[in-house]
Amino acid sequence: MSATSAYAAQGPDAPIAPLTIERRELRPTDVQIEILYCGVCHSDLHTARNEWQHTVYPVVPGHEIVGRVTAVGSQVSKFHAGDLAGVGCMVDSCRECSNCKRGLEQYCKVGNVGTYNGVDRHDGSITRGGYSKQIVVDQDFVLRVSDSLPLPGVAPLLCAGITTWSPLRHWKVGAGHKVGVVGLGGLGHMAVKLAASFGAEVTMLSTSPDKEADARRLGAHKFALTRDAAQLQGLAGYFDFIIDTVSAEHDYNQYLQMLDTDGVMICVGAPPTPAQIAVFALMGGRRSLAGSGIGGIAETQEMLDYCAEHGITSDVEVIDIATINEAYERMLRSDVRYRFVIDMATLA
Amino acid sequence: MSATSAYAAQGPDAPIAPLTIERRELRPTDVQIEILYCGVCHSDLHTARNEWQHTVYPVVPGHEIVGRVTAVGSQVSKFHAGDLAGVGCMVDSCRECSNCKRGLEQYCKVGNVGTYNGVDRHDGSITRGGYSKQIVVDQDFVLRVSDSLPLPGVAPLLCAGITTWSPLRHWKVGAGHKVGVVGLGGLGHMAVKLAASFGAEVTMLSTSPDKEADARRLGAHKFALTRDAAQLQGLAGYFDFIIDTVSAEHDYNQYLQMLDTDGVMICVGAPPTPAQIAVFALMGGRRSLAGSGIGGIAETQEMLDYCAEHGITSDVEVIDIATINEAYERMLRSDVRYRFVIDMATLA
Repeated sequence: MSATSAYAAQGPDAPIAPLTIERRELRPTDVQIEILYCGVCHSDLHTARNEWQHTVYPVVPGHEIVGRVTAVGSQVSKFHAGDLAGVGCMVDSCRECSNCKRGLEQYCKVGNVGTYNGVDRHDGSITRGGYSKQIVVDQDFVLRVSDSLPLPGVAPLLCAGITTWSPLRHWKVGAGHKVGVVGLGGLGHMAVKLAASFGAEVTMLSTSPDKEADARRLGAHKFALTRDAAQLQGLAGYFDFIIDTVSAEHDYNQYLQMLDTDGVMICVGAPPTPAQIAVFALMGGRRSLAGSGIGGIAETQEMLDYCAEHGITSDVEVIDIATINEAYERMLRSDVRYRFVIDMATLA
Repeated sequence: MSATSAYAAQGPDAPIAPLTIERRELRPTDVQIEILYCGVCHSDLHTARNEWQHTVYPVVPGHEIVGRVTAVGSQVSKFHAGDLAGVGCMVDSCRECSNCKRGLEQYCKVGNVGTYNGVDRHDGSITRGGYSKQIVVDQDFVLRVSDSLPLPGVAPLLCAGITTWSPLRHWKVGAGHKVGVVGLGGLGHMAVKLAASFGAEVTMLSTSPDKEADARRLGAHKFALTRDAAQLQGLAGYFDFIIDTVSAEHDYNQYLQMLDTDGVMICVGAPPTPAQIAVFALMGGRRSLAGSGIGGIAETQEMLDYCAEHGITSDVEVIDIATINEAYERMLRSDVRYRFVIDMATLA
């Protein structure tokens, strides 16, 4: 076991504060990574505050991890000390179910093991995430990271990036498609960048007029203010796909009627309460409301390789870990463009 | 114009009662059909009672029509006097939009013209349906009907049949798929017959234990009582597709969690109030909630030809048109197995 500096929440109302944790001794297939940067995802906050009612305290959040390999287990073949490496939302899965066998570890039928607040399949310990100096992860759940991109902007690709990449690839979004993106936050700004990169015509659907310039800079071809009925009128039946990144309660039917025949609205965020869906709107054009969650390991690697090749990173604001609680408050106010990333050098 | 005996509702609270209506003179591409049988669809009742708030009175319901051609217009090439013929839910569409051009007249972007309570595109008159002795329809919206099947059982194929056929074909349901059917009524019994005929494993999901024997007779391989939690436990993540035929309010999430990864729940009925959808259930396995409405003309013909070849008809109870109001009350109590069909010989 090795003592590791970390930041943790001790309870739902406690701030994120320093805590020394233990990382396990390397198993034969483990990789030890010195964490250089860790993105701050809204899930971190949900879990720290027990908003999903399953948090085991103390919890060390963080699942957008990039760092450098410092040691490897005796049977590790994929990584060597000194390599750059990434870890996303999962650190293990059953590896035997039909979904794991086809690269859909995120939908593991036994349940994948989360990078934090998960249960280790070998010793039953609770996993602890990236708000820490180092982490030990099985090589099969470690990603290769290129040295061609700035590392702070790579970290959020491990969650925000793959969560939008996976449905865009699954539904084969590309040239000739009209794509709407709802919500310009951590996920939304990656959806805009990736969909535009794939050749689709991208429209940002936002409640904030001051997001227009940024949306266009990120790659959006059009912008529609969803509070302005006149701007929406021309969008009835317009989109082949809508990527809905909003996890607050909102009006789904406003967007469903913007789908063309056979259009698909893909939710990568979910509100805590049920969505009110007018089923007639689905029947009226053979439309679908679909969901998608993160992505598999192989496709995460494909995404990282693609982003390295095309120079795509997340737009980030790098912070000192001592300001993490303030960052949470700003995240709640959507006062971040578009992802906070902790510089782990600030963790003594 | 030709005077025609019919049955009509004169207002939302009025019974369906005899009325003499006028049918138009044949246009060059029109087909005149003597109606032999007409199925009774729940939409007839919704429209007769103005439950969708757009009924123009008097309304002559009926859009599951089979009959015999009695005359054709000067440019009609597809039909001759004496031919058997069918008419379904539409009698026209714009024919020029992208959907009409690819055989999706049901999703015509201008709006298709309903067989009743629609607006004729040429003279603006209100269309009147199949509760009548004869009807005049453009040849492009008339279907060929085989003489190899009993005609009363063919009539409901024009709505209940195509409404379930179309999504089963669109989503390529067949051998190797596990399909759940929710609700054993006019649509549900056709969904069971067709999905089983396509080689899928079909499970009837019903609230009524006394439907089990019938469901199996219709082709269902399994039956699950949805009020029995024990019977549902084994169905978590089980189905590739669920066809939901229920148009009353019901719990959608109970069924969504029965979908396997990438599973699709297809709604062919819709309640008047919004469905409460747990979006997390969609994200958890890349599931979709989709809708589908009737079918195009070409695929309706394919369906009729397939049913003739495979001996598939609707299970019907043939009634005298004078008992139509009683039939409506029985339909409201689900006291019909599985479709009422009016014998038009009973209309003097």
